[in-house]
Amino acid sequence: MEGNMLEQLKEKVFQANLDLPKHGLVKYTWGNVSEVDRETGLFVIKPSGVDYASLKASDMIVCDLEGHVVEGELNPSSDTPTHAVLYKAYPEIGGIVHTHSTWATIWAQAGLDLPAMGTTHADTFYGSVPCARYLTQEELDQGYEAQTGQVIIDTFAARDLDPSAVPGILLHGHGPFTWGKDAKTAVMHAVVLEEVAKMNLFTRELNHFAEPLPQHILDKHYLRKHGKHAYYGQK
Amino acid sequence: MEGNMLEQLKEKVFQANLDLPKHGLVKYTWGNVSEVDRETGLFVIKPSGVDYASLKASDMIVCDLEGHVVEGELNPSSDTPTHAVLYKAYPEIGGIVHTHSTWATIWAQAGLDLPAMGTTHADTFYGSVPCARYLTQEELDQGYEAQTGQVIIDTFAARDLDPSAVPGILLHGHGPFTWGKDAKTAVMHAVVLEEVAKMNLFTRELNHFAEPLPQHILDKHYLRKHGKHAYYGQK
Amino acid sequence: MEGNMLEQLKEKVFQANLDLPKHGLVKYTWGNVSEVDRETGLFVIKPSGVDYASLKASDMIVCDLEGHVVEGELNPSSDTPTHAVLYKAYPEIGGIVHTHSTWATIWAQAGLDLPAMGTTHADTFYGSVPCARYLTQEELDQGYEAQTGQVIIDTFAARDLDPSAVPGILLHGHGPFTWGKDAKTAVMHAVVLEEVAKMNLFTRELNHFAEPLPQHILDKHYLRKHGKHAYYGQK
Amino acid sequence: MEGNMLEQLKEKVFQANLDLPKHGLVKYTWGNVSEVDRETGLFVIKPSGVDYASLKASDMIVCDLEGHVVEGELNPSSDTPTHAVLYKAYPEIGGIVHTHSTWATIWAQAGLDLPAMGTTHADTFYGSVPCARYLTQEELDQGYEAQTGQVIIDTFAARDLDPSAVPGILLHGHGPFTWGKDAKTAVMHAVVLEEVAKMNLFTRELNHFAEPLPQHILDKHYLRKHGKHAYYGQK
Repeated sequence: MEGNMLEQLKEKVFQANLDLPKHGLVKYTWGNVSEVDRETGLFVIKPSGVDYASLKASDMIVCDLEGHVVEGELNPSSDTPTHAVLYKAYPEIGGIVHTHSTWATIWAQAGLDLPAMGTTHADTFYGSVPCARYLTQEELDQGYEAQTGQVIIDTFAARDLDPSAVPGILLHGHGPFTWGKDAKTAVMHAVVLEEVAKMNLFTRELNHFAEPLPQHILDKHYLRKHGKHAYYGQK
Repeated sequence: MEGNMLEQLKEKVFQANLDLPKHGLVKYTWGNVSEVDRETGLFVIKPSGVDYASLKASDMIVCDLEGHVVEGELNPSSDTPTHAVLYKAYPEIGGIVHTHSTWATIWAQAGLDLPAMGTTHADTFYGSVPCARYLTQEELDQGYEAQTGQVIIDTFAARDLDPSAVPGILLHGHGPFTWGKDAKTAVMHAVVLEEVAKMNLFTRELNHFAEPLPQHILDKHYLRKHGKHAYYGQK
Repeated sequence: MEGNMLEQLKEKVFQANLDLPKHGLVKYTWGNVSEVDRETGLFVIKPSGVDYASLKASDMIVCDLEGHVVEGELNPSSDTPTHAVLYKAYPEIGGIVHTHSTWATIWAQAGLDLPAMGTTHADTFYGSVPCARYLTQEELDQGYEAQTGQVIIDTFAARDLDPSAVPGILLHGHGPFTWGKDAKTAVMHAVVLEEVAKMNLFTRELNHFAEPLPQHILDKHYLRKHGKHAYYGQK
Repeated sequence: MEGNMLEQLKEKVFQANLDLPKHGLVKYTWGNVSEVDRETGLFVIKPSGVDYASLKASDMIVCDLEGHVVEGELNPSSDTPTHAVLYKAYPEIGGIVHTHSTWATIWAQAGLDLPAMGTTHADTFYGSVPCARYLTQEELDQGYEAQTGQVIIDTFAARDLDPSAVPGILLHGHGPFTWGKDAKTAVMHAVVLEEVAKMNLFTRELNHFAEPLPQHILDKHYLRKHGKHAYYGQK
């Protein structure tokens, strides 16, 4: 990657990080966004615990897919090993977001999968968003953040889920991770997840017998926006 | 319609679309507003999936009542056929809004009619706002968006409801449509629907035995603002 | 009242009306504020259904205590007779506010008195805020708005409540009225009522057995701010 | 303390007070922040009931650890004796915040300890945030605000809690107090407490059987940010 491309990626990741508080997904410095450059195998991520008010694009940290810092003077986000593990396992994703956004975190704390109750959900997530189990003490000892990435991968494998069709997960007792083709799309998926987490909670409060979307409606909405027969938006 | 009138209508529809995020009814590009010119039988609607930040009045799309694009270079909203079907069936309406606004969508996802629990509701909607059924696979195959319009019309007919007196509906698992004499009024109805959806949900949570408004209070409030004996507002 | 004082009162009432959307208590033109001048027996109130964006201090309407317009070219708020009846019955109050604010309206729609669950409530309202009954058809026929004022007065009398100590009420199926020594204070009471309505609803959701404040804490907080032994704020 | 240091402390406390409405923790003048200078044994606190719009850094009040005013022309916050008692008992704390923030107050009104349901909580509070009992009539007679401080101290002592590890408390029927190494940190703890109070309430609504975090996850998250093995943020 040329220096110029690297600066552009830092700027994109910086802007995507600023989008988190703009969309009400984080307070203070909670949350982080990264984006990978697949040619060089390097990704750019926010530094750890730096105030958004003083954050600059040039503060962004460059890491390789082992999670080692390649460039940057600050510590990278403490969640960097989770990002690295996901980029390595899923070559189809380009950007990752982690937040403690209120309603997605509520589902994570409740330890429940988020079912697809409406078309707002189905437009982005092709079925339930899974909730991954707690890590064991042994996994913590092996490295909390990298093992978090491994548990995400195990959860998708055990349920035979496609990370492109379900671009996010809830971590029990923690909060959501989302991903997408780039940082900006991953942020949009975090916004959608937060909104449907809120709507689906109150849907069940309003009607305890409310059912997930019928399969044919789920298919219709997801496929209206995704895949070769999509017709939403501009070409 | 002269070019000048068309430009004015585009401007009105553009402004009404901007009002959706201003009132907190949509995130990103979710939602759409249209307004019809009854003399020419043409309506103007937002293009599909275009960022509000870059949207211009001149991007608005002109369609006829069959939903065909008459003018404009972008794809119209994917919900255009629903708008067309409603304009054709209901000559008394002039503007239509579709959103996934949080609280109205919660009632839609719960599959419940929204009862008139208070005067905020009664000032605008003369009784319950109905929730329309899911479309069948057959209806999806015939054209999802046009059939959505048909199900709205069928729901109003089956319940003998007047679309002028109840200017909105919930679509099961999806979200609300509202309408009015023009785009601006349809947006106001979307704001009212969202607010009463929130209030009525928590009214029932607070008091599971809370009843809808008595008929004489419903009549009083609706008729204070509508019809020939109205005395609210300025002449 | 000299013309100059009248202009000042219009300005105060105009500003107090603008405070309603600023505090998130009203959408569009819902809600109204008035303030009375006791020397002349005239009060100033917002015109009915005029957009806040175009509203001017000079649009405010002057009425006498029978609710007749004394000065102003627009129609006064449709709730003007309620304000007039309250000013006439309660010489100790100087300003009145009516809104459909979300959480206070939820209690009104639920038809429940708002109990004093915490000190935020006790700092302003010395005990439960009552919920007044629906009007009968006969009362509607006699004049909805004036009879609304009468039902408020009857509710306070039947429960032996002091309108200075409990400066507000909920109207079943409708929303809150608050009052105070002037328009600005009445708005503050509307803000407090809205906030405690929200807090008290969720307090009961969180703990169905939560009790109102013990009497000695209610006394302490109310009397810390009110009466001759008050010591909160500046002299 | 030199005059210059005193002015700097007033400025810090003034800014920290302004942060309360900025973070949505207070309305009007509800709430107060202070910070202590341990060398001189003086603390600076907001004056009582002064509008934020007209508040200036020079209005801040200087008090000694008995709660007596040492400098300033306005009355100090009515809660000043609570601050004084806490600074005297806990030499390790440098700043204190009191608010009636919505969700923390709901738990306080419910009279319930706030359990650690997620890592957002565990990052700041090492276990449940306790809810202190109501004061008795006798304690009110001895001085409400100072006795409030005493009940906080008694609650921490009775449960063998470390005020550095659990930097906050709920007061039954009232609201939260938080503290930290300085005023700014105490405000951040108030923001975290408010957010987890909201999340934990809805976690239990969503899943009545949701359990607090397992001990090994609580330990991991708290100790990732606190103590000698912390690795979050910059050095």
